[in-house]
Amino acid sequence: MNIETIGMIGLGIMGRPMAMNLMRANYQLAFYARRSSSLQPFKSHPVQQYDTPAELAHHCDITITMLSDTPDVREILAGDAGILHGARAGHLVIDMSTISPEETRSLAMQLGHHGIDMLDAPVSGGEQGAIDGALSIMVGGKDALFAEALPVLQCLGANITHVGDHGAGQVAKACNQILVAQTMSAVAEAFLLARSSGVDPAKVRDALMGGFAYSRILEVHGKRMLDNAYRPGFKAALHHKDLGIALHSARENGISIPGTDLVADYLEKIVETGNGELDSAAIAKIILGEIK
Amino acid sequence: MNIETIGMIGLGIMGRPMAMNLMRANYQLAFYARRSSSLQPFKSHPVQQYDTPAELAHHCDITITMLSDTPDVREILAGDAGILHGARAGHLVIDMSTISPEETRSLAMQLGHHGIDMLDAPVSGGEQGAIDGALSIMVGGKDALFAEALPVLQCLGANITHVGDHGAGQVAKACNQILVAQTMSAVAEAFLLARSSGVDPAKVRDALMGGFAYSRILEVHGKRMLDNAYRPGFKAALHHKDLGIALHSARENGISIPGTDLVADYLEKIVETGNGELDSAAIAKIILGEIK
Repeated sequence: MNIETIGMIGLGIMGRPMAMNLMRANYQLAFYARRSSSLQPFKSHPVQQYDTPAELAHHCDITITMLSDTPDVREILAGDAGILHGARAGHLVIDMSTISPEETRSLAMQLGHHGIDMLDAPVSGGEQGAIDGALSIMVGGKDALFAEALPVLQCLGANITHVGDHGAGQVAKACNQILVAQTMSAVAEAFLLARSSGVDPAKVRDALMGGFAYSRILEVHGKRMLDNAYRPGFKAALHHKDLGIALHSARENGISIPGTDLVADYLEKIVETGNGELDSAAIAKIILGEIK
Repeated sequence: MNIETIGMIGLGIMGRPMAMNLMRANYQLAFYARRSSSLQPFKSHPVQQYDTPAELAHHCDITITMLSDTPDVREILAGDAGILHGARAGHLVIDMSTISPEETRSLAMQLGHHGIDMLDAPVSGGEQGAIDGALSIMVGGKDALFAEALPVLQCLGANITHVGDHGAGQVAKACNQILVAQTMSAVAEAFLLARSSGVDPAKVRDALMGGFAYSRILEVHGKRMLDNAYRPGFKAALHHKDLGIALHSARENGISIPGTDLVADYLEKIVETGNGELDSAAIAKIILGEIK
């Protein structure tokens, strides 16, 4: 495919810097934005905008979606004025949102009936990763489409893995989110044990950084916990949503993941007490008794 | 202190290569061994051996202990023929076993009444780390003694941290063990979620290695899980013992660490079903339903 124009839907914290990186790589962009304020940062750039996802998709070869949750993606892809109703056969939707793997498979099938292709390509790495074009991208879908999308994805991420067929990217992302949340919880338990034993958690972190207990979470989020620095980063409310997706998949698959149940309860408590806008490392605030 | 001779007690999987590394660094060693078979590997080396810990300590400047559990250390240090009854004032005991922080503080005080110094210096890194002289060493005790012991410890480890006063090394080790066990459990849950979703866990591991979900456990023990390779390594039975120490400290300190409770139950089940000699990554076998 000779990519002429990329449509972009979802210009939030993540989508905005991603769009900037695509423009920097000389892709022609076009937007559909539910809120016109989202277009403000692009005022000085020569970008076309359209009034519906269907119209946008009609004028593009690829549409990238970067939205908050499953219902948003369903609406934009298959709603009344959705991509489904405008895109030409051969159009490729790359959904980089974090949504349900089951819904992803269902949407891919629905689009497929109209000759529209789809990749799921959720990301990890947060706002900074998006700005730096250094996201981890976990891709599900057909081999040929992955190959086609790769040059575009390489403008956005540094670590791009084709995990498997439709939904596999979302499954990998769910795995990412349950690992990250549980590692945060484990680090917080270690710090609590240290503190309650009269030992400096910062020294414990130093001691553990070089060994088998090392994780990026110990390094980055462990530091956040020590510094009481919970400005996001990645919001607890979104992490809560993501674990909901993982636990829904677990139920559908008939498996039990009790460690995930435990940290999902922590995130629920964070959201319920009005702290959902904190970084998800605030899991530590539950364990340390700072949120009750 | 001009160190003439180092006494070594505990020549198991860890102690043996540690002794070899000290000899390679030209320290004069002397041994007390409960089983004479432990001395077999040193037959060709000019090492003195003594019949009791007391006698050994009397002839050494430093004694290093590398034993299995709290009661062994208590017996060797303070038992009838223990170090306490032979060591001269100014003798330094470096206990590199993994034992209770509370008991460590109590033993350090008891030795102190006889003018004998003590450091707790438990390690992480396993048999390979001991062979390579690349252990992580977590040290508790007085500043001056840490400085004195450092040249000796540097023959054994690569990442040596003075965590705090007596017992602080053991607290750090307990933190290490609860982090390692919980990260294993989280990795296994991620692999289970992937497998049950029809996605290759190996691909998920690839996708997660470069991002925030990265941990040494995902890298090393995640590979073990994928390869079904549970030859130790570090035995589940010992990890179970170590979490017992952590949970005992938690109870003493009046704190709750439910993530640790969960993985301690897994390790208990591994031991109860006669699988305690497997590597502790066998936590995955519980989560994946391979040990019931």
